[in-house]
Amino acid sequence: MTEFIGGHIGQWKVTSIRAVTGMSLEVVSHLQINQKDSFVSGSFRWKLKGFSSNLRYAERTEKEKLLAIQEGLGRINSTCAALIPIRKNEMWWAMAQDERRAIFEKRSHHTDTGIKYLPAIARKLYHCRDIGEPFDFLTWFEYAPSDSEPFEELVYTLRKTEEWKYVDREVDIRLVRND
Amino acid sequence: MTEFIGGHIGQWKVTSIRAVTGMSLEVVSHLQINQKDSFVSGSFRWKLKGFSSNLRYAERTEKEKLLAIQEGLGRINSTCAALIPIRKNEMWWAMAQDERRAIFEKRSHHTDTGIKYLPAIARKLYHCRDIGEPFDFLTWFEYAPSDSEPFEELVYTLRKTEEWKYVDREVDIRLVRND
Repeated sequence: MTEFIGGHIGQWKVTSIRAVTGMSLEVVSHLQINQKDSFVSGSFRWKLKGFSSNLRYAERTEKEKLLAIQEGLGRINSTCAALIPIRKNEMWWAMAQDERRAIFEKRSHHTDTGIKYLPAIARKLYHCRDIGEPFDFLTWFEYAPSDSEPFEELVYTLRKTEEWKYVDREVDIRLVRND
Repeated sequence: MTEFIGGHIGQWKVTSIRAVTGMSLEVVSHLQINQKDSFVSGSFRWKLKGFSSNLRYAERTEKEKLLAIQEGLGRINSTCAALIPIRKNEMWWAMAQDERRAIFEKRSHHTDTGIKYLPAIARKLYHCRDIGEPFDFLTWFEYAPSDSEPFEELVYTLRKTEEWKYVDREVDIRLVRND
């Protein structure tokens, strides 16, 4: 389990918190990331947790492309980050696997769009719908300052897709590493 | 989150615990089921927890069949139950969604086989791979004593499938309600 803790301490400085859809999160100055449930000393404003899992939609060829190109988190030059928690509505979750796959990939090209920005924009997805959290997914992105423009293009592209019509809450948190 | 707690108290009396593949679980006389993380008073031998989620493989037509026929847990005549925790190996989890779906349904007919025994054999699946548990899934079945034979047929059928070649730990716990 990974915890994202918004407060006044942490490895990442928050540069902005913006509600894209629905309710925002309280403004904080820093974000702390813990790799498991742990005692958090001091006060904090909010805590979001999630777990990484197997890929839920990627087919063999897509998965191979991802594995071949992607790089891990923590690269020295990746001093910019974004945490984007989203929640999807009940219509999304009432759909069957084939219907969700058709929207996610065949019509919205979610994986293909992500691949286009690899390895520059590293990302990691955390799931949290099933554990009683306020969001369904937390996506963490890391990139170099020189890749800020491609990153804006990536989130802009995803937000225009059919898939995003099912997003009923989205917060966009931008950060820089606290070196 | 649902917890299955093996010990000397609980709503269900354990009639047998058998390892089908890999290591068994310690023998206990009773099973207690809690609907969330909670303080368990008294001693217990083991605790397995998991969460229910959306269907990961069922397509629209399969999902509709399931929703049309299935009945809930807790039926008065369903005094027999089984808890079957399983773990799948790394080969399974390294596969992409289309490869897992092909084995799960096209070649092993997992959903179709389950549907064949509805509504008599009610089942509920809990996921636990992603939360650091010793198993990947916990399946809970409830049925009337008169449906014991169909139940044996169901588990026998599933265990012969190609999908089951990826199961590297399976424990079969049978229970009767503690009326």
